[in-house]
This record gives sequence, structure tokens and C-alpha cells, in this order.
Amino acid sequence: MPRYRFDIEYDGSGFAGWQRQENGLTIQQVMEEAIYAFSGEAAVLHAAGRTDAGVHATGQVAHCDLVREWPLRILRDATNFHLRPHRVAVIAAVMVPSTFHARFSAIGRAYLYRILNRSAPPVLERQRVWHVPSPLNLEVMQAAALLLTGRHDFTSFRASQCQAASPIKTLDQLSLSRVGEEIRIVAKARSFLHHQVRNMVGTLKQVGDGRWPPERISQILDACNRSAAGPTAPPEGLYLTEVQYPPGHLEDGGESAGPIGVLED
Amino acid sequence: MPRYRFDIEYDGSGFAGWQRQENGLTIQQVMEEAIYAFSGEAAVLHAAGRTDAGVHATGQVAHCDLVREWPLRILRDATNFHLRPHRVAVIAAVMVPSTFHARFSAIGRAYLYRILNRSAPPVLERQRVWHVPSPLNLEVMQAAALLLTGRHDFTSFRASQCQAASPIKTLDQLSLSRVGEEIRIVAKARSFLHHQVRNMVGTLKQVGDGRWPPERISQILDACNRSAAGPTAPPEGLYLTEVQYPPGHLEDGGESAGPIGVLED
Repeated sequence: MPRYRFDIEYDGSGFAGWQRQENGLTIQQVMEEAIYAFSGEAAVLHAAGRTDAGVHATGQVAHCDLVREWPLRILRDATNFHLRPHRVAVIAAVMVPSTFHARFSAIGRAYLYRILNRSAPPVLERQRVWHVPSPLNLEVMQAAALLLTGRHDFTSFRASQCQAASPIKTLDQLSLSRVGEEIRIVAKARSFLHHQVRNMVGTLKQVGDGRWPPERISQILDACNRSAAGPTAPPEGLYLTEVQYPPGHLEDGGESAGPIGVLED
Repeated sequence: MPRYRFDIEYDGSGFAGWQRQENGLTIQQVMEEAIYAFSGEAAVLHAAGRTDAGVHATGQVAHCDLVREWPLRILRDATNFHLRPHRVAVIAAVMVPSTFHARFSAIGRAYLYRILNRSAPPVLERQRVWHVPSPLNLEVMQAAALLLTGRHDFTSFRASQCQAASPIKTLDQLSLSRVGEEIRIVAKARSFLHHQVRNMVGTLKQVGDGRWPPERISQILDACNRSAAGPTAPPEGLYLTEVQYPPGHLEDGGESAGPIGVLED
């Protein structure tokens, strides 16, 4: 049974997150319904990151198995046709080996967090940024971010409902830059705890507006207590931008097997 | 009577353009109503560019006179408060001399046009870009754009309802670049004819997808006939990004008078 990888973009506003649930429309549901609409197959999609309500994605990855072997262009365009009018689109569809798993094969994830740092409320970027009207000091936020980078017990930045086996994670990158009126924060790691990025951003904001000195980050990490860190930043500023897989994951085991099929035009 | 300059951002989707009209909500109307809501003054706003329905702005400029002298921060924030839930916001409010006119004092205007050039439909940027799924050749579009730059009779790129006295305009800049999956087009001139930017973009698209050679631009200009050029590109990709005024326009005539008051934090 062929396995397909989908690279997916969505506007998380108005969705109750990725994962199917009883109450509220989810991205998983509209994707599965779109696939069913043209294929007649009730496939189950597995995503690399189960994003929360309101969180966006430009580079979500999911996979599913379908009985029929579909031309990849048709798979992508037919899914997109049935996804309208939802704000979800398949950017690329690829056939992958049956050993590929969007979540368990992933070796890296990247998130972007956007803060609109100006007095006037967001207009063109409404529901796509966190609006912080008070001026933020980028330099002290960068100093604080450096203290978060590396291998730590991130219990203080972990949601109570987090299901990860261990709170110890290695944060490979947490970099901040100013782009026009925005502060953009890029976070990269093999994996994150539930709400980890939003809790780190909420804490960096406390530093940026002068409430806390950057050195306080070390105490917060040492506390291993969620209440030591800052509030959870709102979901609308967060984007899952990239999921990384080991090189050659598109190949089917043997060294001679090239990419099975890629469609990205 | 003090005169105020407003720098305004808006999402043009759902608006019937800038200018007040009988049918349809306009940006001028919601701005004037917001000012009235807190000041009780029925001011008339004059804008630098009367954008069409669906066209966005990040740098629209408008002015009006108010009887009362308002602290600029209050003027900006109170207007923004009453503008909710509309997708319109005042970025900055400034007091200007009574000789300043947002439209007639302007000496330059800049527009951005965004084309999303990929197969998948826009999701996060829906209603904010023109979706062109077929691959566009940037290099030939750039060659065509060079032929449009400079002083020309732009009759072929002018809407039939255009009210400008002369079709002869100097296009100072028409530059194209690829930013990720987008082609971004920047157009700068002292002023533009009605629909000129969208008609130029619609024509560049004909060149970019191979329908027309770039050299055809010269024939189109020479034809002085709207039907010689390409179709009008849709409004949702267009942004008024900047209006330029002579240096010192914030000063009140005399050389000793510094800026009267600026608020941009």
C-alpha cells in the first residue's frame, strides 16, 4: 500500500488545532475529508507536530497510506480542490517508503514566532502575530535566549498536560531579529515539549519589556516549576515552519533506489 | 484650526476602496466615523491615493482639520480604538502646517504588487496576493519592466474611467524580485494613472508566462490603446506602501520652525 507524504500550509485561526477531536474543526479532519472526497479512502493522517488551536504552519508534514497509487500532481491538486474554502493547502505531495513516519522519523523541527511590536494594532497581520504595544529591548531578549539554548531540563516551560517522557531537551537554536516593526524568534530542536516555544516567548517578553533581567532565565530553568517562567504567549504568533528528516528518507532502503517521486512545482 | 496627518494601514478586502460612496463600506468612511466617535467633529479626510476596492495599504497618508488641538498619542489611540473591528489602523498621527495636503503636496508614491507563484493556492496570504499557478520567468519580466520605466504616454495602461489630465507619466522604478514563492514588484513614480500599476502587472504576467516577448512592451506603449496591453491584475496583490513629501513639509514655513510634533512609537 503506497505511503504518501504531504507538506501542508495552514492558517490556524478558526481551527481547534491539528488533531481530530469531538468539539471543533481541526486541520486533520478537513485534510482527511478532502482526501476521502476524491479517493473514497478513509485514510488516517499522522502529522509531525500536533499544533494547538490558532497555531499556523508553513511547513507541517503528514503522511498516510492509500490503497491506490495516485499520480502525485493529481493527489495534490485534488486534495487542494476539496480543501476549499478552508485555509489549508497541500504544497507538495511525495511518495515515501513504508518505513517513513512523519512524526517518528523526524529529526528536527523549526518554529517561527512573530511579535508585532508597535502601538497600532495589527491589521494586515491580524491573528498572525502577537501584538505587544510596549517597546521591547531586543538585545536583552537575545541575551536571555542564549541562556535557554542547549541541553536543559525544561520543566519550567512545559504545559501541565504535556505527555513527553522526559522534560530534558536540547534547544539547538533560539535566535531573535527585528524585521521592520516585528521581532521574529526562530526556535529549532529535535523536538519540543508541549507549549515550550510559547512559554519561552512569553518569558522572553518579560525580559524584553524590562520586568525581568536576562540572568533570571537560569533561576527559572533551575526552579523546574512552570510558575517560575512567564505566561504562555498566544498561539496566533506561532508557525511550524520546517520538519527535518534524515538525508535519504525518500529512498526505499537499498542504496540503488533513488527518490521514488517528488512533486514540488 | 490644526491640521493632522495620519499614516494609515489597512486590509482592503471587504472594503469598496478608500473613497466614500453610496453603496459599500469604505476606508474613508470608517476613519471619519472613528474620528467623530471620540471628537464629535465631522472631519473630512483627504488621502494621498484613493485606492480601489480590495487594494491594501501599509503607508497611506491622509489629512484633516480638527477644531480642537489633540495630544497626538490620544488622537492615534482613540482613532484606533474606534476603528475596531475594522481592519484599519493609524500607525502615526502628526500635526502639520495648514499648507500641507496629503494628495497635492505628495511628490512620490510607491506601490508593491505581490504574486504568489506556486501550484498550491494561497492560505496564509489569501486575499493578499495574486495567485498565479503557472511558473513565471522572472528574467523576461525584468526585461519588459525596463521598457516601461521612464517617461511615456501610458494610455495603453490607463483605465477608461481615469480622470488624470495627461496620460504622460514618468515611471521612476519598476523592479521585480523573487522572495521565496513570491514575485514582488515595486513601482515608484510621482503619480500614477488609474489602474496603471495593475495594468502593468497584468502585462508583465503575459510576458512571464511566455505568451508575449518582452519587446512587445514598446509596441504596446506606441499603440496608445488600452486593448493592446494585458488584462488588469486583481486588486488583492496591490499595496500602497509609501507617499513621499518634500523635505521639511512638517515645518511651518519659516526656517526656524522645527517639526511641530511627531508621534511614531
